[in-house]
Amino acid sequence: MKLAIAQELDAYLQANIPLIAAMQIKVSYFDGKCLRLSAPLAVNINDKQTAFGGSIATLATITGWAMATLLAKQASGPNQVVIAESKLRYLKPITDDFFAECLRPVDSDLDSFCHDLNVKSTAKLVLPVQIKQGNKITADFTGTYVASVNAPPTSAACPMIFNE
Amino acid sequence: MKLAIAQELDAYLQANIPLIAAMQIKVSYFDGKCLRLSAPLAVNINDKQTAFGGSIATLATITGWAMATLLAKQASGPNQVVIAESKLRYLKPITDDFFAECLRPVDSDLDSFCHDLNVKSTAKLVLPVQIKQGNKITADFTGTYVASVNAPPTSAACPMIFNE
Repeated sequence: MKLAIAQELDAYLQANIPLIAAMQIKVSYFDGKCLRLSAPLAVNINDKQTAFGGSIATLATITGWAMATLLAKQASGPNQVVIAESKLRYLKPITDDFFAECLRPVDSDLDSFCHDLNVKSTAKLVLPVQIKQGNKITADFTGTYVASVNAPPTSAACPMIFNE
Repeated sequence: MKLAIAQELDAYLQANIPLIAAMQIKVSYFDGKCLRLSAPLAVNINDKQTAFGGSIATLATITGWAMATLLAKQASGPNQVVIAESKLRYLKPITDDFFAECLRPVDSDLDSFCHDLNVKSTAKLVLPVQIKQGNKITADFTGTYVASVNAPPTSAACPMIFNE
């Protein structure tokens, strides 16, 4: 686990987005390829004693955003990432603590993202996020994120060091 | 404004879904045709000082759910409504307090929903929800909700009293 990156991300989210703290979302795992954010059922429960749809949507949204932000940072340094659109399918009710998992995109998608960010200073990334309870997939999310950099990158080369 | 229904709905959400209380979501308007739920920016802010995408998704999700629940209650009495899927497009950043608005579906869609709920004990409803800051549309959401009733309805007739 890339502990320092996970801890820095976790601290940033807790400090800057009150809803993340209210939902008790934690960055629970990051190894450079897979990012997981977890949430307890207790504060994210609904009237049916299962996970609230809004909590599921929020956890998925922020997990994709976090992955896009880490990738953009590796590609071009300081950046701003926003979500443009999302789709979410709820597959099974969640009856216990749960987490969202986002995998690093395949190299060709990452190359394209990195190229656009360095050349155009803005780039789009479509990220699938799965919501799981244990090893059971309970919801499928796809988020489209747009990254932009304010300053031009110091090098036109794409430093693909994310998974090193 | 149908004050009693709005107050009852508000109290139910506050009591049963902790995230609704954390986000300070309130049922702010209901006239039988239009339902509005509002949220303050302060507790729903992100690191860019605009409304957090997760808060927007949550407000839209619960507003559609509330409309589906009210419609199902009018059609068949006690029921359970869950969200099956959603799509959300983020159009503009939100820089102040905001609200979600859901309109009662057209009669033909409502007839079909009501018929299925009374005959099959389950029915699907697709509801558009707009997120607004003042009169500016900032996000477009579509939620697909599934309602089910446990007990058979007392009458096969469809009591379309929702907008009376």
